[in-house]
Amino acid sequence: MLDSSGPGEDRRPTTEGDPKTMKLVLDCDPGVDDAVAVMLALASPEVELLGLSTVFGNAPVDVTTRNARTLLRAGGRPDLPVAKGAHGPLVGRFGGGVPFIHGKDGLGDGNVARASEDDRPPDLSAVELLRREVLAAPGEVTLLAVGPLTNIALFARVHPEAARQVARVVVMGGNALSPGNITPGAEANIHNDPEAADIVMGFDWPVAMVGLDVTDGIVLGPAHLDAIGSGGTPAHDLLARAVPLYRQFYKDFNDIDGVAAHDPAALALLLVPDLFDTEDWPIRVELSGIGRGKTWPQTRRRPTPPPGWEGRPPVQVATGARSEAVADFIADRIAKARFGT
Amino acid sequence: MLDSSGPGEDRRPTTEGDPKTMKLVLDCDPGVDDAVAVMLALASPEVELLGLSTVFGNAPVDVTTRNARTLLRAGGRPDLPVAKGAHGPLVGRFGGGVPFIHGKDGLGDGNVARASEDDRPPDLSAVELLRREVLAAPGEVTLLAVGPLTNIALFARVHPEAARQVARVVVMGGNALSPGNITPGAEANIHNDPEAADIVMGFDWPVAMVGLDVTDGIVLGPAHLDAIGSGGTPAHDLLARAVPLYRQFYKDFNDIDGVAAHDPAALALLLVPDLFDTEDWPIRVELSGIGRGKTWPQTRRRPTPPPGWEGRPPVQVATGARSEAVADFIADRIAKARFGT
Repeated sequence: MLDSSGPGEDRRPTTEGDPKTMKLVLDCDPGVDDAVAVMLALASPEVELLGLSTVFGNAPVDVTTRNARTLLRAGGRPDLPVAKGAHGPLVGRFGGGVPFIHGKDGLGDGNVARASEDDRPPDLSAVELLRREVLAAPGEVTLLAVGPLTNIALFARVHPEAARQVARVVVMGGNALSPGNITPGAEANIHNDPEAADIVMGFDWPVAMVGLDVTDGIVLGPAHLDAIGSGGTPAHDLLARAVPLYRQFYKDFNDIDGVAAHDPAALALLLVPDLFDTEDWPIRVELSGIGRGKTWPQTRRRPTPPPGWEGRPPVQVATGARSEAVADFIADRIAKARFGT
Repeated sequence: MLDSSGPGEDRRPTTEGDPKTMKLVLDCDPGVDDAVAVMLALASPEVELLGLSTVFGNAPVDVTTRNARTLLRAGGRPDLPVAKGAHGPLVGRFGGGVPFIHGKDGLGDGNVARASEDDRPPDLSAVELLRREVLAAPGEVTLLAVGPLTNIALFARVHPEAARQVARVVVMGGNALSPGNITPGAEANIHNDPEAADIVMGFDWPVAMVGLDVTDGIVLGPAHLDAIGSGGTPAHDLLARAVPLYRQFYKDFNDIDGVAAHDPAALALLLVPDLFDTEDWPIRVELSGIGRGKTWPQTRRRPTPPPGWEGRPPVQVATGARSEAVADFIADRIAKARFGT
C-alpha cells in the first residue's frame, strides 16, 4: 500500500476497487478516543473524510484544534481542512475539560509528536466548513459528532436550509437506558451542552445516537491496544503515546483493563451497522436539575405523547452491540492501515 | 384451614408453626396492584400486618382509604386499623389519579363488593399510625410503601426519632436503570411526590427500592390471574373483579397479556429475597425539568461523589429478579389462602 504521491495529492489509504461511498465531516474534541476515531476514519476505504471541525470538550477548543491538525498529519492527511468551532456551550460556560482522563494536552500527556504547522490558524469556522461541504454534495454528507453538539446545533440554527441537506447526523453521546458518566444522569458530551443536544435531537434531519448504552461495553482490551499502537506508522505511534493515561483512568475508576471506544464506536455504527441493535425513539434532553444533560427517550406507547415530547422526531438509538466484534473491527482496521506511509 | 374464631379474635391465615416474624405497616393507594399486595400480605404467614395507611395516588385519598377498608374486610381482617394520610404531595398538587388504569373507584370499576362500614371514619392519621406502631416495637417494624411517599416523608420529618426506630422501609417506586412509566423519566409513585421521595431516600433508615427495573418484568399472566381470582373467598372475588380494567391497560399499551405486579413485587422482596438481585447505590430524586421524579442512582465510582450525592446513604436497589418465580410465588400464595374463611 505504498503511496508516493506528493503533498496536496490524494494520499488516502484507499484500496483498489473500494469506492469512497461515505462523505464524512468529523466534528470532534480530541481527546484520546477522538484520536482513535479519526484514525479509524482515515483507515476506512469507504470513508471520504472531508475535514475535521473542532469543539471544546475533552480539552479547550484551542487545544482540540491543534490536536486535530496533529492527528491529520500523523494520519497522512495534512491536506484536509481543520475548522475551529465553539469554545463553550450555547448556554453557560465550559468547565475546562477532564485532564485526568485525556491529559492537559488532550492527547494523554504522552508527548505525541507535534509540528509547528499544528499551530497554524484554522482554515475556516466549523459552521462554515459544515455548510460548504454539505452544499457541495447535498444529501450525501454525514456528520459524525463525537464531542459536545454546539457546532452541529449552531449549523442547524444558522443555516437551516443547508442543514436539511445533511444525509445523516451520527452522535457519540447520551445514554438512553444506562447511567451517565460525568454525573449519575448525564453523559459527558451531552452534559457539556444540553441545549445544543436538545436542538440536534429535535431538528429535521436523521439522527442516530450512539451513547453509553453501547459504548461503555465496546472495550479495546490489551491485545487491541497493542495492535493499534504498534503498526509502525506515525499514526500508530501517536496512539501508543496517547492511550496510556486514558487507560489508567479506566483501570482506576472502572476496574477494567482496557478503554471504552466511545468515539470510534459511533463511526463503527456507520461502517458495520449489522453489529448494532437500534430502536427509533424520540429524545428530549434534560435542561435543568441534577439530571441536566440526560437524554430521555420516549420508549413507551401512550394514548398521547408525554408533555415535552410532542412532535419530536424519532432518533435512531443504539441499544445493543456485538461489542467484542465491534472492538475487533476497530482495532484490526487501524492496526492494518498504513496511513499514507 | 377452617377458622371458627369470632369477630375480634385473630383470624389471620396462620399456619401452625409459622411465626409472624415480620411486623408490617403497608402504606398504599389502592389501586388494583395495591389490592394484590394487601391480599399477599394477608396470605403470608410470616407477616404480621399492623394496619394500612393510605395516600393519594392511583385515586384520591378518600377513595383509596375506602378501598383499604374494603380490602381488609374482603381479606378477613376488618379489625385492622386504616389510617388516612396525605391528599396530595408535599409540593404542588395532585393531578387526579389514573382512572384509565385503576378505574374511577380505584379498584378497576368492577363493582367490587362494598359495605357501609367501608365508609366509616379512619381510625387515626397515617403519620400517627406509623409512629404508634413503630414505637410499640422499636426496631422491628417494616414500612412497605407502595404509593407516593408523602406519608413516609412526613413521618420522618414530624417524628424523626421514632422514624429512626423503623426496621426497614421498602418502596415500590422509581426506576434506577429502566425508563419511567408515567413520563419517559419517572415512575408514577415517585412522580406523584418527588420531594417526599428525595426525603425518604436520604433519611437515616435502611431503604430498599423495588422499582420498574424489576416490577415491569414481574408479570402475572393469564394462569396466575385465573388462580388469584378463583379461590372462592371474598378476597379472590374482589381480585377477579378488580383486575380486568388494569389488564386491559397492559394489553392496549404494553402489548402483554397479563399485568405487572408492581406492588406485590415490593412485598415479595421481603418474603423471597433470594429471588432478587440488588445493588447498594445512593439515590437522588430529580426535582425539576422534564425528568422530574426520576430516581438517580450513583452507580459509578468517582474520585469524589457527584455534586448533589454527597453524604447520601446507600439504598438497596432491586436490579434484577427471577421474574417468573416471583410471579408464581405471588399467585400461588394468594390462590391458596383462605383469608379467614
